[in-house]
Amino acid sequence: MPAHPAGVQNCVAGPGYKHRTHNPSPTTMHHQNQPLLDALNACIAACEHCATACLLEPDVKMMARCISLDRDCADICALTARFTARGSEHAPHLLKECAEICKACADECEKHGAHMQHCKECAEACRRCEQACRAGLSKAA
Amino acid sequence: MPAHPAGVQNCVAGPGYKHRTHNPSPTTMHHQNQPLLDALNACIAACEHCATACLLEPDVKMMARCISLDRDCADICALTARFTARGSEHAPHLLKECAEICKACADECEKHGAHMQHCKECAEACRRCEQACRAGLSKAA
Amino acid sequence: MPAHPAGVQNCVAGPGYKHRTHNPSPTTMHHQNQPLLDALNACIAACEHCATACLLEPDVKMMARCISLDRDCADICALTARFTARGSEHAPHLLKECAEICKACADECEKHGAHMQHCKECAEACRRCEQACRAGLSKAA
Amino acid sequence: MPAHPAGVQNCVAGPGYKHRTHNPSPTTMHHQNQPLLDALNACIAACEHCATACLLEPDVKMMARCISLDRDCADICALTARFTARGSEHAPHLLKECAEICKACADECEKHGAHMQHCKECAEACRRCEQACRAGLSKAA
Repeated sequence: MPAHPAGVQNCVAGPGYKHRTHNPSPTTMHHQNQPLLDALNACIAACEHCATACLLEPDVKMMARCISLDRDCADICALTARFTARGSEHAPHLLKECAEICKACADECEKHGAHMQHCKECAEACRRCEQACRAGLSKAA
Repeated sequence: MPAHPAGVQNCVAGPGYKHRTHNPSPTTMHHQNQPLLDALNACIAACEHCATACLLEPDVKMMARCISLDRDCADICALTARFTARGSEHAPHLLKECAEICKACADECEKHGAHMQHCKECAEACRRCEQACRAGLSKAA
Repeated sequence: MPAHPAGVQNCVAGPGYKHRTHNPSPTTMHHQNQPLLDALNACIAACEHCATACLLEPDVKMMARCISLDRDCADICALTARFTARGSEHAPHLLKECAEICKACADECEKHGAHMQHCKECAEACRRCEQACRAGLSKAA
Repeated sequence: MPAHPAGVQNCVAGPGYKHRTHNPSPTTMHHQNQPLLDALNACIAACEHCATACLLEPDVKMMARCISLDRDCADICALTARFTARGSEHAPHLLKECAEICKACADECEKHGAHMQHCKECAEACRRCEQACRAGLSKAA
């Protein structure tokens, strides 16, 4: 496992930090991850909203798997956002699993998206978040 | 404790939901809390970043209380954001304590803001979040 | 709001820490909150398990409010446990709301406890956690 | 990525649940993960306590990496515990990264364990948690 994949920019932490020659200030680097943070935060809010809205649908049973995935997806996105914001050296290690869960949640929500606005919006937020995580991973390759 | 203070808009949950006469759709109401969510998410990211940056300062000891408050502030904001996004009937109950911790963190960060950009930015994010939480509370009064 | 209610023992943090005359070591004080931490952790696990089990019931719709409260209860207990374990000066401020949500979840789960083992177990864990939180609050009075 | 590694027992969720021939009740299976949950919860509390105690040490700068790893370790353990307790099909996917972060935190804390009781206790809790996560992974092989 590489200690410093570049997919998530380590703003201020991580071994070797002091030894970089042209070290951008922590503040400058901080904003490089803003698009990823925005995608993660939008996904958290969409999943939380979708789970609550699913529980109010007439046929809740049909939404059970959607609710389960909403819970997992909001939680992994929240952890990934925290690690990213703090510039943790472990942030990149979460991106793959975060993308996988976003994909699973998007796939399930899309099944209901034609009839339920909350699932449509959640699927879109999950898909954008999956892409943002994979973009981070590809930079790390 | 009132069961439904109006400070945080319950998008889809909470007793009485079905009985409102002019009930906005869950989707419509969802976006009413976006400014609060944005303030909370910005505060989480600023606190996480500030804690990491404080740990890299030459005089870490001077930053110890700042780091402690950053941890608490990021955590309470994260919970408040989740409850708000899901439209929990308990979301409004967290706003007061969230505002208090944001205030404490802003007060501490302001002491260092003249010399440290991360503390300056964190103080500003905490102050905005404190105000967003108090705005929610005042609607509930 | 008192800055240092005694309901949660501040192991190592909080103003005044250095000035106590007979200051127990952080390690010694650490274990004073173990019963509260145990009750919180048991409640988190029971709520997470209950929510999942509710989603597998034949009549999920009947369990919708139970699932919603399980989500809130697990989340507030998790935050309260983190603040308690770190000896945050803000830990005591969470105990009242944590007790309220545990009570609400216990009340709902008890309605289903005769027929569903997961709700019976969750109601018991929530009730014990509510009591542990209130015990902490009463020490602070 | 296998959808159902056996390292974490899926109590109630996951595809195929309905189709197992000798399906233990959710309640029975629930308790199979208790040793893992106990190790995770002990690790969370030890890391939170260690971070706070490190911030009170005379030489905080020496403890900066320890504090950073305490934050990451408490957070990944908390997510892993939630996924495990809810029987998420994604719980097993977190075990490897959780074990890695526990190992990194234990390695760092052991450097200070001779002189600081909080680091000694945290190193032990992290090592036990790393082992519990790896035990789960080996069952999944």
